[in-house]
This record gives sequence, structure tokens and C-alpha cells, in this order.
Amino acid sequence: MSAPLPYDTQQLRHTAGEIITNVRELSHAGWTPATSSNFSRRLDPRHAAITVSGRDKGRLTEDDIMVVDLDGRAVGSDHRPSAETLLHTQLYRRFPDIGCVLHTHSQVQTIASRLYAGVGRVHLEGYELLKAFAGNTTHEAAIDVPVFANTQDMPTLAAQVDALLDRQRLWGYLIDGHGLYAWGADMAEARRHLEAFEFLLGCELELRKLGCPQ
Amino acid sequence: MSAPLPYDTQQLRHTAGEIITNVRELSHAGWTPATSSNFSRRLDPRHAAITVSGRDKGRLTEDDIMVVDLDGRAVGSDHRPSAETLLHTQLYRRFPDIGCVLHTHSQVQTIASRLYAGVGRVHLEGYELLKAFAGNTTHEAAIDVPVFANTQDMPTLAAQVDALLDRQRLWGYLIDGHGLYAWGADMAEARRHLEAFEFLLGCELELRKLGCPQ
Amino acid sequence: MSAPLPYDTQQLRHTAGEIITNVRELSHAGWTPATSSNFSRRLDPRHAAITVSGRDKGRLTEDDIMVVDLDGRAVGSDHRPSAETLLHTQLYRRFPDIGCVLHTHSQVQTIASRLYAGVGRVHLEGYELLKAFAGNTTHEAAIDVPVFANTQDMPTLAAQVDALLDRQRLWGYLIDGHGLYAWGADMAEARRHLEAFEFLLGCELELRKLGCPQ
Amino acid sequence: MSAPLPYDTQQLRHTAGEIITNVRELSHAGWTPATSSNFSRRLDPRHAAITVSGRDKGRLTEDDIMVVDLDGRAVGSDHRPSAETLLHTQLYRRFPDIGCVLHTHSQVQTIASRLYAGVGRVHLEGYELLKAFAGNTTHEAAIDVPVFANTQDMPTLAAQVDALLDRQRLWGYLIDGHGLYAWGADMAEARRHLEAFEFLLGCELELRKLGCPQ
Repeated sequence: MSAPLPYDTQQLRHTAGEIITNVRELSHAGWTPATSSNFSRRLDPRHAAITVSGRDKGRLTEDDIMVVDLDGRAVGSDHRPSAETLLHTQLYRRFPDIGCVLHTHSQVQTIASRLYAGVGRVHLEGYELLKAFAGNTTHEAAIDVPVFANTQDMPTLAAQVDALLDRQRLWGYLIDGHGLYAWGADMAEARRHLEAFEFLLGCELELRKLGCPQ
Repeated sequence: MSAPLPYDTQQLRHTAGEIITNVRELSHAGWTPATSSNFSRRLDPRHAAITVSGRDKGRLTEDDIMVVDLDGRAVGSDHRPSAETLLHTQLYRRFPDIGCVLHTHSQVQTIASRLYAGVGRVHLEGYELLKAFAGNTTHEAAIDVPVFANTQDMPTLAAQVDALLDRQRLWGYLIDGHGLYAWGADMAEARRHLEAFEFLLGCELELRKLGCPQ
Repeated sequence: MSAPLPYDTQQLRHTAGEIITNVRELSHAGWTPATSSNFSRRLDPRHAAITVSGRDKGRLTEDDIMVVDLDGRAVGSDHRPSAETLLHTQLYRRFPDIGCVLHTHSQVQTIASRLYAGVGRVHLEGYELLKAFAGNTTHEAAIDVPVFANTQDMPTLAAQVDALLDRQRLWGYLIDGHGLYAWGADMAEARRHLEAFEFLLGCELELRKLGCPQ
Repeated sequence: MSAPLPYDTQQLRHTAGEIITNVRELSHAGWTPATSSNFSRRLDPRHAAITVSGRDKGRLTEDDIMVVDLDGRAVGSDHRPSAETLLHTQLYRRFPDIGCVLHTHSQVQTIASRLYAGVGRVHLEGYELLKAFAGNTTHEAAIDVPVFANTQDMPTLAAQVDALLDRQRLWGYLIDGHGLYAWGADMAEARRHLEAFEFLLGCELELRKLGCPQ
């Protein structure tokens, strides 16, 4: 007889449904090409539900969602968690109020990450939509979106993210040639942040094409 | 026992349904990112129905529509109207024939507003679609879409709009880094104007990228 | 008692259904902004069915389709045909094998028409998709799409089109700042031609942005 | 009495259904304009199912799928296979582990093919999504997508492809002004490769517009 699972299976089923519904919409927007991208949701103070890597994000089922602890190890599952799981769990471990992490690969995110990798950040200023980020109440705010170098060495990348979080409050970052991580208190807030990043990065790219340096 | 409501609740229900259906389509077009944008419809000579700010415009329900008087104060509701409500009600107050105001944040609108903020207007000329604006019967018409500076001070912005309306007939204006206001006699006309602005601003941006100065 | 209608009403009903279904798809593609565009289908050697102008092309019903004779006069209807009806009927009158005329206003068509209005034509060469035009069997074909100046004087524009048709076989033309006319033997062929024009004009615009002169 | 068919008709019906469902999705993405494009799936070691050329790829039925042998000749069908059938069957003949070949004509593929035809290849490097190609386990991989000259002479083109396959492992190639061939072990892998090519070629074009030479 197997040991009881250390998380609430009813809660997992509910959370898996929420992930599936929302990720399908992100996939139909074209932000998860070629089975890329990873999505997670906090289950409780010690566990998160996360998509199994390599699955088609437009056709997720409950079987494509697994549980990990906050060190990124599989719990009650034979699936091997993706190496990038660490980038999700480090956020849940550090910030008790973070409940959802969305990692997407839209074309705009990929292009912006390559274009601004040299500078190391995308500066966003002068947009009403900056008010979409929790804590901003005026469009006079400005945000720097960090761009990290891409690497297969996740512990190193996680350490770089941690070092930056020591210095500033963040709602997302880019990885060069790779995509965006965005997060929030729950699915609705994480999606609002993700949509705002996508929109504002897209505006920056178009303004650059139009010869309007920021 | 509460006082009777000073508007027709049957009319409100009908109007709310019309707003919900139409805004869902605008949201699916990507013109209301990250819970932005506001939409209103005249109820009667002294009231308008308007979306509660901060709601996901792709998933509106009747509970996301509130009633305001033409000074922008909530009527029969505990919701706090958005600061931008004033920009809707000043139009209803001034023009009895305006029945619908649509405020959206598409990428094209945001980019055009930033690009032309210095000049203060976008000049549209030489397009057949200029005939889409009520009162224009030939493509030989030309339109200047004003671009106002963005501000959190709505009474000041409303006064600037009013001053401009003293001098010219308008069907819409841009706010820098923010988006578009468009209006019309009813929902159909307001949407026709909104679609025409979006289309023509998009053409201007593309022609600029193609090295074709207007 | 009114005189019998000079066309087959059963045929009209069938044709109206075909127009409604197809135009809805073109509208959803964004090619009929702000109630613009007109679509027609030959009914018999002396009549055509055509959309009533000013209707929302994404929501057509049978009531939005009227019958005209090949001089562009309404038959059995109180609707006033659009001035552009002449540009449809001149094709049916001249070519017995033309059964369908589609007039759309996509952004690509509008932008290309303005960009190439000075030269008076868009030269398309080197594309496999040139084989989509009836009569072309190799990608080695080349096509010049004429661009006419926009005007409210339809008889003059119709005469210019006629003069050009005296000199060359055509499947479509642009009007400056306005849009595209495309046609074919039936709805399927006209849509294939329309799609090919849209695709190829879009490629030309993108190649120009990429600094690749044709 | 006719001879029994040399393939499993039950298997053909299953395969046709898979092709129809998948091609409809590719068509709705706009990658098969104006009845272009061809799609095939291996049936057994000596046969493949392939779309009949000239059909609207968004409305395929079982009647639009035919069987060919690996020399590209029709089997049990009166349909004439498209000349391009050879480009499908040469892959099945050479690689027993290839089960699906997808040939599309997206605008991005067409534009990239023209832009890089002179160089003869598109170099893709620095993208996380390179891991989408079977056999690549790191984003540090680089891929050269060959661009062949367009021709109506399929045996010559097939010979050029064969010569290149002697020298390197490939998951796809472009033909100038024409489109992309992509393949994989099965439908899911071929679509993953196709989506990755489309995404990465699109990034390259946008980065070029943004003045970022690769």
C-alpha cells in the first residue's frame, strides 16, 4: 500500500483544470510554439503543480500536469520534471504571495530578448499599461525588464535571478533567445502581467522599426 | 426600503447585454490588453451605463456594468467609477446625439499615439475609408486625429477635449501612450468609427515603415 | 398584382446563401473594415446578386443582398445600388465566363495601392503562387496588377478599366487608397484569386521593408 | 472483378482522418493560401497517402486523399498525383523512420526563401527553440536551412535534395518563392518541426527589420 500523497488531490484536480484552460488560450495566441513553454501554480506552502515538459500546450490533459516540491523534485509521479522547474519553484520558495508562474515563448518575447541581450534590460516608460503591474498606480512609473543570458545550467541562472530579486521587485524577466517568465498572486494576475509584458515589448519593437528610439 | 432607481432597469439590462457582446469581440481582437479599456452607452438624457474598471473585458458579466450620471458619479451602485468616466460623460453631456463611447488600447493606437504625440495629431488623407465617418461622403475628406498628452488629472484632460470640441467636429482622439476614444450615435456607429480609426492608423504606421511619408 | 420577377428567385436564394457564407469568412479575416466592401455573383445572363452597401459584412442576412441588371440598376428592390455596382456589372457584361466579383479593403491592399499608385502597377514575379491564377501553369509567369486613381466618378473609372481590358487579360486591380477588385468563373475561383493577390501583395510589402527591392 | 488493393484500407481511412484534421489547422493558420501546399503520411513500407493537388486545404474530405507508391505513382486511384509528389516520396524511400512530410506556403516561408535564395541557406543560431528539432538537446546547436532554386523540373530538384541529404541530416528545406518542406517520424514530430521552422524564420525576418544582422 502506497503512502498517502502529501498534497490535497482535490486541490490538484481543481488547479490542473485552471492550468489547462488558461494554457490552451495562451497556446492559441501562438505563445507556446513547438511544445515549448512551462506553466505552474502553487498548490500549498510546500508544493506546486507544473506542466510536464515536451507536451503540446494546446492539447493539455490532466495527465500533463505533475506535482513538485519547492526544490523542484517530482512528488508522487514518475515524470521527470523539466530542468526549468527550478526557475518556477525559486519564486514560490522566496515569495509566499506568489501563486502562479507563466513561462512563454512568443515571437515578440524571443525577438526582444535577442535585441536587448547586449544591454541586459528593456526599459519601459511612458505607457498607460504600466498600471497593469501590481503596485503601479500611475503611468509615470517606469520598469526595467531584465534580460538574462540563455544557459542549460539552471542552478546558475536561478542564482542570477535570486541576486537580482535581492535588489528589486520584479514581475517578470526575459532569457536571451528563449522567452519570458512572468508571475503574480494568482492566475488572473499572472496573466495580466504576461499580457502587459507582451503588449509593451511589442510596442517597443514596432516603435524601433518606426525609427523612434526610446 | 431603498429609493426607486432613477433609471429604467429594463433598459439597463438590455444595454448591459449589448455592451457585453460587443466588448467581447473587441477584446478578442486584442484591443483591451491586461484588463484595460472602458466602454459606455447612454441610458437616458441623464444616465449612462459603463464598464467597471479593472475587469477582464473578454469575460464581462452584468455585474461588470454600472450606472453613472453625466457628472460621472455612481448611481445605485457601490462600485467606484474609474477616473476616466469623466471622458465618457463629458461627451454625453455636450452632444445629445452621442449614444456610445468606446475607449480601447490596441497596439496600433498606442504606437501611433506615441509616434505623433510631438506633432499633436495624426493627419489622415487619401483613404476611401474616410467615408466611414458619419458626415463624410467622399474619400476627398481629410481628418486630423488629435493626440493629447497622458495625465492622471482627468478634469484637466476633459477641459482640453472640450476646448478642442469648441473648434471642430470630432469622432475620436488619441491619448499619448494610452489609447483611443471613439464615439457615435449608437453602438454600431461607434464601432464603425473605432474600426475605421484602427484601420487607418495601422495603414499610416505601415506606410511609414515602407518609407512613404504622408 | 405585381409583375413576375425577371430572375429565378430559387436561384437568388441559393446565391444569397453562398455570398453570405463566403463574405462572413472574408469579414472575419479583417478584409471588410467599417462596413466597407461589396460582393456580387452572376445570377443569369442579364442579372447579378450584390450586397447592399453600408451593411456590416460579418453579419449579412438575405435582406442585405439585392438584384441588379448588368447596367447596375436595381431590379425588384427598393434598395439603391452602390455607385460601385458599375465596376461589378461591367465585368459580367463583358465576359460571359465571369461569375463572381469580390471587392475587399484589406490593410495590405490599401497600403500597396498607395505605395504603388505613382508607378500605376504592382509587378509580381518569382512566386510559385502565381500558378493560382487561372491560365498560369508555371511560376515563371509574371503579373502586373494595375493601380487606378481613386474617384467618386464611377463611369470614368469603369471606362479606364474597360480600356485596360482591351489590352490585357486581368484577374484583378487595385484602386488607390481604396482596395482590390478580384474575380473568377465562380466563387471558389474568385476567392482563390483574391487570396493569391492578398498573399503576394503582402510578400511584396514585407520584402520592401526588408530592403529587398523587386 | 478488380484486384485487391496493395495497402490496408482501414489504415488509409485512419491516416486520411489524421491528415484532414491536421491540415485544417495549418490552413486556418494561413499557411496554405489559394489551394496551394501538399501533405503526406507513410502508410506502409511501400505506400504513402497524399493530398490531391489543387484542393482547398481548409475543407479537405477523404476524397481529397490519394495513395501513391514510393516512386510517386498513383495506386488504386484515377487522380493524377501532383508533380511535387516526388519530393515527398524520395524522403520515405530514403529514410524508413520518416512517417510524415508537410509542405506549406506561409508568407514568412515565402519571404525568407526569396531573401536568402542568393546565399542559399538561412542560418539559425542562438534560439532555445532549436531544441524542438529531433536530436538537438541544447540551444547551442545551430541549423542551416537550405534554400533551393524553384523549378518545374521535379526530378532535378529531387536530385539536388538527395545530394544534400548525402552530406547532412535535415528536418526541412525552403524552395525560392515557393515554401517549406518539413518532416518527422510522425505527424506530431513533423508539425513540431514545421512550427519551429516557421517561428525561427519569422524571428530572423523581424530581427533583420530591426537592424540586427545575424
